[in-house]
Amino acid sequence: MKDTSVISRSVISRLPRYYRFLGELMKQGVNRISSKDLAGMMGLTASQIRQDLNCFGGFGQQGYGYNVPALRDRLAEILGLDKTYTAVLIGAGNLGRAVAGHMSFDDRGFRLIGIFDVDPLYKGIKIRGLPILQDSMLPEFCAASAPDMAVLCVPSEAAPAVVEQLIGCGIRNFWNFSHYDIKRDHPDVNVENVHLNDSLMMLSYTIKNRQDEAK
Amino acid sequence: MKDTSVISRSVISRLPRYYRFLGELMKQGVNRISSKDLAGMMGLTASQIRQDLNCFGGFGQQGYGYNVPALRDRLAEILGLDKTYTAVLIGAGNLGRAVAGHMSFDDRGFRLIGIFDVDPLYKGIKIRGLPILQDSMLPEFCAASAPDMAVLCVPSEAAPAVVEQLIGCGIRNFWNFSHYDIKRDHPDVNVENVHLNDSLMMLSYTIKNRQDEAK
Repeated sequence: MKDTSVISRSVISRLPRYYRFLGELMKQGVNRISSKDLAGMMGLTASQIRQDLNCFGGFGQQGYGYNVPALRDRLAEILGLDKTYTAVLIGAGNLGRAVAGHMSFDDRGFRLIGIFDVDPLYKGIKIRGLPILQDSMLPEFCAASAPDMAVLCVPSEAAPAVVEQLIGCGIRNFWNFSHYDIKRDHPDVNVENVHLNDSLMMLSYTIKNRQDEAK
Repeated sequence: MKDTSVISRSVISRLPRYYRFLGELMKQGVNRISSKDLAGMMGLTASQIRQDLNCFGGFGQQGYGYNVPALRDRLAEILGLDKTYTAVLIGAGNLGRAVAGHMSFDDRGFRLIGIFDVDPLYKGIKIRGLPILQDSMLPEFCAASAPDMAVLCVPSEAAPAVVEQLIGCGIRNFWNFSHYDIKRDHPDVNVENVHLNDSLMMLSYTIKNRQDEAK
């Protein structure tokens, strides 16, 4: 079993997908699965699955396959889903509200503890039981609660100042939905970007190339 | 220049990012850039950039660098952003409303022509000028307007039936925000998935590993 700190990002980036498929299997009451069958489900090769999962120790047994709940628990542990991280969300528009609804899975992972917006119109409104607070209250809130991460759902123009403020409040981890490139200005912080436009452009590419093929 | 149909998915998947960074440069009034400087901005190596962009023809000139607007226009063409595709969006909750606000870039790409929801409570409400229509009107709407793709913002439980209906209406391209694995049941359709949970799990992993390092 390799030291998890040296495992490549491309292997790591496939783990959530394994975790998701194993969850599906558990829902269907499947307790063990061969690498071949798992590969078929996931559109991968059995050998790639064995290689990926071998990075984290020997889960599978020859002729038996993988123990689904055990493998899923181990992946949860590797992904840090056995911990609970606290999060603040900045930007309570449609995107922020949608994202607030996606902050937990199976009661694991992240717990939203504060929602902030610059717009005073939101005062008094609650999302998932949390009142929307004014941006100006962030420093005090962070000093008291020390959240582990921030979710950034503000427009790109507003993002640099908000990130600056959050870093000043001690936050080092960001889930970034804005187009602002946090890493360029703050190379030391930890950022996971969700670029909806990039995904839409990929779709545009595949539509175009399917149509070209069909000509 | 390679036939674009044989270029690997990993190269293609980097193109939206190039397109985004080149747009930033144009906003800053930068008209040409060396592969070295572009690499520095994007956290890549100059050689990777040259390799990627060579797949699509010789954009750069030795000692001159890349012509930013020309390269960006060419990427737009490759990505199909010079076409306009029409889209229907299914599911008008917070996520659907947020996504509706992300459907166009620089007036290129996609045009939302219909929004549908199963909930009769939404009747009469408009999003970005479009009335929310009842799901039952989908077949008639698609027969009249033949949308190029559907955006799926419905809960996972509802997704299989909605996808079945949309495929019956002639739709073959999906931007999928639900957790439903469309490809497994419909291998012939074109799907771009946005898995917010996967992204959040990656963040969980990196937070955990940074904390482990700091111990």
